[in-house]
Amino acid sequence: MLSPTMFSGRMKYMRASEIRELLKVTEKPEIISFGGGLPAPELFPIQELYELTAELILKQGAKALQYSTTEGHTPLRQKIADRMDKIFGVSLSVKDILISCGSQQALDLIGKVFIDQGDDVFLESPSYLGAINAFRAYEPNFVEVATDDDGMLPEALEAALKSSKRPKLLYMVPDFQNPSGRTWSLERRKALVSLAERYGIVVVEDNPYGELRFEGSMLPSVKSLDKSGLVIYLGTFSKTLCPGMRIGWIAASAPIMEKLVLVKQGADLHTSTTSQMQIDLFLERYDLDSHIEVIRREYKKRRDTLLGAMERYFNTDISFTRPMGGLFTWAQLPEGMDSRLILAKAIEQNVAFVPGGSFFPCNPRHNTMRLNFSNMPEDRIVEGIERLSKVLRQMRP
Amino acid sequence: MLSPTMFSGRMKYMRASEIRELLKVTEKPEIISFGGGLPAPELFPIQELYELTAELILKQGAKALQYSTTEGHTPLRQKIADRMDKIFGVSLSVKDILISCGSQQALDLIGKVFIDQGDDVFLESPSYLGAINAFRAYEPNFVEVATDDDGMLPEALEAALKSSKRPKLLYMVPDFQNPSGRTWSLERRKALVSLAERYGIVVVEDNPYGELRFEGSMLPSVKSLDKSGLVIYLGTFSKTLCPGMRIGWIAASAPIMEKLVLVKQGADLHTSTTSQMQIDLFLERYDLDSHIEVIRREYKKRRDTLLGAMERYFNTDISFTRPMGGLFTWAQLPEGMDSRLILAKAIEQNVAFVPGGSFFPCNPRHNTMRLNFSNMPEDRIVEGIERLSKVLRQMRP
Repeated sequence: MLSPTMFSGRMKYMRASEIRELLKVTEKPEIISFGGGLPAPELFPIQELYELTAELILKQGAKALQYSTTEGHTPLRQKIADRMDKIFGVSLSVKDILISCGSQQALDLIGKVFIDQGDDVFLESPSYLGAINAFRAYEPNFVEVATDDDGMLPEALEAALKSSKRPKLLYMVPDFQNPSGRTWSLERRKALVSLAERYGIVVVEDNPYGELRFEGSMLPSVKSLDKSGLVIYLGTFSKTLCPGMRIGWIAASAPIMEKLVLVKQGADLHTSTTSQMQIDLFLERYDLDSHIEVIRREYKKRRDTLLGAMERYFNTDISFTRPMGGLFTWAQLPEGMDSRLILAKAIEQNVAFVPGGSFFPCNPRHNTMRLNFSNMPEDRIVEGIERLSKVLRQMRP
Repeated sequence: MLSPTMFSGRMKYMRASEIRELLKVTEKPEIISFGGGLPAPELFPIQELYELTAELILKQGAKALQYSTTEGHTPLRQKIADRMDKIFGVSLSVKDILISCGSQQALDLIGKVFIDQGDDVFLESPSYLGAINAFRAYEPNFVEVATDDDGMLPEALEAALKSSKRPKLLYMVPDFQNPSGRTWSLERRKALVSLAERYGIVVVEDNPYGELRFEGSMLPSVKSLDKSGLVIYLGTFSKTLCPGMRIGWIAASAPIMEKLVLVKQGADLHTSTTSQMQIDLFLERYDLDSHIEVIRREYKKRRDTLLGAMERYFNTDISFTRPMGGLFTWAQLPEGMDSRLILAKAIEQNVAFVPGGSFFPCNPRHNTMRLNFSNMPEDRIVEGIERLSKVLRQMRP
């Protein structure tokens, strides 16, 4: 009775990830998984959240459990604006901040506000899979821009913009990118803002990992370089606090914010009042910076362990990035190797990772893989890389 | 630098509600508001939620604060399936249930999965404003179907379906509809399912109020009459427990569920793990039915008080519905009166309601108003209706 033609045209572009089923097995405890992008749950501030949440529900339950405004809990928006000024040098007020259900919802709202079928959306090569999926529902034409270790190549971006008939949006992750671990240099950030202004495109700066820097000094956010209101900044508490409450935010200029609030209202009325007030209380009572310092120290150790194990166990013709922060490294295998086939074999040996092909919006390179280092203790990381190296050796052409 | 032409075409249809700004004043404590659709916060089970949430975070924080699956927390999905069998006579299993961020997100996901620009979407007259707003982002053609106190008129619906070139979706609220308070009769429910099968359209049954029945007996849900998998059922804990955690669900047949999960993943990855586990624990430890009984008794008193006050204070040429449950009544003013102008005057007297015009997808009738009775104690209801009646008398043509 239900015909496939009943679905909307956009559903033709929405495909279940071929690797999603494979990765479901990574939930089994015997699997050593470099797959997901999960933060370390043993670092969640459980005692603090327990105490403040109990008090919040008992004393302010009538408000915390009730409907609230689409824009978000005002005290939390104010704290986020203040924090963005302090950490990223972006001067904002409460009205510039919209609370979203994680950064993923922010991507969907932005797609809805900006993308018409066939509009050009410019992405790094590779780029974050979740952004590709969110935007795909609005049927853009993805343009994959050549990218090196310092970010997109300005000359490649300008050539792409010049030849674009309908340039609309550029999406980028400035620090410790998912999946590659790369960080854009200051020079590239400046070139990006100047090209965006010249060609009149909106830039989405998605920065979930920026505060998880292990070494070197923080670079100015792209939003802080923007004088024309074309840069939209996405932030989240998923990596610095915990992801389960789904609290992210969007910082945007007034004309964009007005549209985002409209579509947010239609999309889910508002984000959980309880979760927003929990995070607001955490920021009021505790020092998020010192909590982030704890995460940084632990993830740095895990990154060092992962890179050390890869150096020791992997063949020298496998190259990989050395990210200065974040959650991921990215490995490149010799031409001709297909990481999807390697994953299938690896799972038989109880080890998992994410094949890299899906991170390329246009031209998948299947001899790549993403490895997460935040979610596992160091001994498991070493053990996992040793197992994976054996599979890689078996699968060599 | 930011040009209005940068926004997507769909944004032309997304307008800020003209009454939203007016209704913002209803947050002032001196205002007696019949405006929002807020449940009574004094009935939230605060002690129970306090105890179980504290325990949840302390003992299961590593899981409750972590990422989880797009489909939702499996034990909660199972309990919802069981409950829908018990209460609504719909036989479902865990795989038929997707957790959403309130019913509002469910509407957005359904719009995305089904609606192409120009598709016909059939709605009651009047219909729920939130559904109109969610669907509008996908640029349908709304078809307003003649409706009386028992639901849509089958002959009017059939005529509309016959003359439709692109029939796609029908949206309805079976019990104590928002805004009219009406309940569809069993005969009309059967006629609807039979027409949906004959013309091959999907029916969205949005049932947030069905369990809040004050008198009479519950009717079979439309989903329980559906043999062909064309009916999608939307449920929520917003009115039976509390809305602030934003937990709703979608029950749909397998081919539809597969698409909904795909778009949910792009829209926000998943709904708050914490909120889902909180509600799951509540259902495990407490009796939701007896909690709902408390709500029913209180709302029935408030409805009786509201209707009594309207009978006493309103002129006899103002008619209004006598809903057997839910949160709203709907008043019809003499021709020529405009409830938007009345609202402006009413706010000067510190009383508010929602003008009815926005609830008509095609042909607004501005001599209508929606009145909520769930969110105020009885003395304030009487006082508010007395004030409102004076404004209404002043504004008569």
